[in-house]
Amino acid sequence: MRPRTLVELIAAKRDGARLEEAEIDTIVASFASGQLADYQMSAWLMAVFFRGLDDGETVALTEAMLRSGRTLDLSGIDGVKVDKHSTGGVGDKVSIALAPIVAACGVPVPMVSGRGLGHTGGTLDKLEAIPGLRTRLSADEFLTIVRTVGCCMMGQTAEIAPADQRMYALRDVTATVESIPLIVASILSKKLAEGIDALVLDVKVGRGAFMKDARSARDLARALVRVGTRAGKRVLALLTDMEAPLGAAVGNAVETSEAFDVLVGEGPADVVECTMSLGSEMLRLAGVAEDDTRARIRLSEAVTSGRAARVAERMIEAQGGDARVISDRLRLGIAPEEIAIDSPRDGYVTRADALSIGLAAVAMGAGRTRADQAVDHGVGIFVDKKPGDRVERGEPLARLRVRDRSRAQPIVERIRDAFVVGDARFEIGPLVLDRIDANSTAARASD
Amino acid sequence: MRPRTLVELIAAKRDGARLEEAEIDTIVASFASGQLADYQMSAWLMAVFFRGLDDGETVALTEAMLRSGRTLDLSGIDGVKVDKHSTGGVGDKVSIALAPIVAACGVPVPMVSGRGLGHTGGTLDKLEAIPGLRTRLSADEFLTIVRTVGCCMMGQTAEIAPADQRMYALRDVTATVESIPLIVASILSKKLAEGIDALVLDVKVGRGAFMKDARSARDLARALVRVGTRAGKRVLALLTDMEAPLGAAVGNAVETSEAFDVLVGEGPADVVECTMSLGSEMLRLAGVAEDDTRARIRLSEAVTSGRAARVAERMIEAQGGDARVISDRLRLGIAPEEIAIDSPRDGYVTRADALSIGLAAVAMGAGRTRADQAVDHGVGIFVDKKPGDRVERGEPLARLRVRDRSRAQPIVERIRDAFVVGDARFEIGPLVLDRIDANSTAARASD
Repeated sequence: MRPRTLVELIAAKRDGARLEEAEIDTIVASFASGQLADYQMSAWLMAVFFRGLDDGETVALTEAMLRSGRTLDLSGIDGVKVDKHSTGGVGDKVSIALAPIVAACGVPVPMVSGRGLGHTGGTLDKLEAIPGLRTRLSADEFLTIVRTVGCCMMGQTAEIAPADQRMYALRDVTATVESIPLIVASILSKKLAEGIDALVLDVKVGRGAFMKDARSARDLARALVRVGTRAGKRVLALLTDMEAPLGAAVGNAVETSEAFDVLVGEGPADVVECTMSLGSEMLRLAGVAEDDTRARIRLSEAVTSGRAARVAERMIEAQGGDARVISDRLRLGIAPEEIAIDSPRDGYVTRADALSIGLAAVAMGAGRTRADQAVDHGVGIFVDKKPGDRVERGEPLARLRVRDRSRAQPIVERIRDAFVVGDARFEIGPLVLDRIDANSTAARASD
Repeated sequence: MRPRTLVELIAAKRDGARLEEAEIDTIVASFASGQLADYQMSAWLMAVFFRGLDDGETVALTEAMLRSGRTLDLSGIDGVKVDKHSTGGVGDKVSIALAPIVAACGVPVPMVSGRGLGHTGGTLDKLEAIPGLRTRLSADEFLTIVRTVGCCMMGQTAEIAPADQRMYALRDVTATVESIPLIVASILSKKLAEGIDALVLDVKVGRGAFMKDARSARDLARALVRVGTRAGKRVLALLTDMEAPLGAAVGNAVETSEAFDVLVGEGPADVVECTMSLGSEMLRLAGVAEDDTRARIRLSEAVTSGRAARVAERMIEAQGGDARVISDRLRLGIAPEEIAIDSPRDGYVTRADALSIGLAAVAMGAGRTRADQAVDHGVGIFVDKKPGDRVERGEPLARLRVRDRSRAQPIVERIRDAFVVGDARFEIGPLVLDRIDANSTAARASD
């Protein structure tokens, strides 16, 4: 039989047919070469939105996007290379402490991170609050730092999965973002390009997450684990709560500072729990800890011994940054003016809306609404009271850090509206809502 | 409420929402201005493919596409201006005789026609077999000829519904052609741009038609009538059979010649019946005949009196053509070499596959597979035996007219394969399968 033409491949997916792996290769390769036009790709993406892709098709799409660019070769570095990816949230500064802590346990962590967009922040923006630190590294620099320090955090380059970058840009303007197989292929193609052996996914769920409800978050987590496993990697996902911001700090320098707190054995309980839970999974996937208890002991030792902080210092120095920031937070340049937002009543906090707080941070200049905007690393929000906390009338719910008090009033209103304080004692649930490994998805593959 | 952004409008249709008329206007106007990119339009078109448009949305789309270009003003011409549109078939040369016959009955016929593409022919290609005849006319020329002669047949200009032309080009390469509301809006926007008062649609159904089955053809016909009526026009549709080619001639000059046969009172029974059925509806929509019987008497008188042929002569002359072709067919330049394809057996023809015969005509050079190809007006096929006909072994089923016998063998095989000859007597059904007027769609609007 003659091969199907590109238009026939669009029509086949439109009509609900399964595409062969070679056909998905053809679509991506033709898009990369310009033979399949943007308007044809967007029509195909919309057809995929409606018809979906099965796991085999999603693996084929992931690998085709991966092959559109350069793949890092980490085979020269000993050990099981593990990365962590978060689907994005508000106050999620976990990577900055997690990577050095895990590296200090002997597991190499090559981490390619992203920037903030919309209400969610990005690790690169937070890291760049460190004076001098470069996140644009060559592949050789990156490999050298992973080998010598144990971890490195850089930005995605144009060479990594360029087909994914162009497809994502198209999806963003054609209402085809919200498709689980397309999200899975986009995430995994970038992560697999790092040359990792294993990946822990932090799938956020709730008001401040991309996935607002547990069902769709679980669907995404399962698809990520199934497809990543089929692509030959050790993959595991945690579903974690994102109703309220993670930790207290929301912004860039303020979050980096809070991550350093965790690195040296302090920090808010939820950020510590998130870091330790993800770290435990990373150590176990890497095979350096047998179970959660032993993994957490190793992680804690790395922190309390100061080894994790020393790895972070070496990483910052290797990336051109001023490593003194870990002990001297003034060097992070957090904005000096503070505005407290006081509780209007006594009671219990029942809501601190992560989405509203995230959008308020964007409005302050800490984030961006378009990919080409600059961010102000110094401004930020401290969320002093979280759901479940008791608060007295007049006690601060949150504090803003701004450069110019005169323009802060609309932000103050937004933050105030993000909180709900009620009369009844309020119990919050666990941070980690579910754990999805390759076995659990295999057992539920018929869901 | 703030207006939805363009991406939100794509998402709304994707999610099955009804768009407001002003929103559909925005989509088309933004596309025309370049603010909505091709890749966004193709994503929207794919969303429409899946979610559909209701009649109100389809009217809005039709009128927005219409407004993207120039509209002819026929108000200076007396009478109810009526056009006919066919959804395309094989051997469909009806317009060439129909327009002059109806015009000879006192009904102005301003006709903007198309070219052949794929297995279906186009009226413009057939007309251009007439030496000297121009189908590229200015709007002023067109209006003058309709006013003075009673009918004119020209090609679509870039000024007529340019948004539709660009959208159609996109649909063709993004697998979004087969959507009833998009087909309806495309047809009606072009036809309404002619400034007509009434429109008769010939919706072909069967092997050689765009709609292969009666159900989808009826759905299309009903949608065309409902939406055209809502747009303020008198609209009616006939469903006509397109299992076998219409008439005997398939090509360009050969079809023009057969249309001239009908014009002077001869021609194959099915072409005559199709012409008279559509003409009868046109006279009745125009209000110049009360019923089918009286309409057919008027049409026949126009033919037998020679008035219809004289209108055709004047139209051809006004468009720069050699009007002597009507009585002197040698001037049409039909290819001289004839190859007969004889029946391998005695029996009854049970199939003369319109699609295969149409594709064979394209392979001979009579049609095109891409819009920018030239056609050979002289080559063609005579289908001597049609379904239901008795045939003796060795008697021709069809005859090719070619320029070069040596290259005809593959075509001969294709034509032979298009025929099935069986033992049993075979009854064919009526040519006109259904008639859909505004009342019948109103009664069935809840279908």
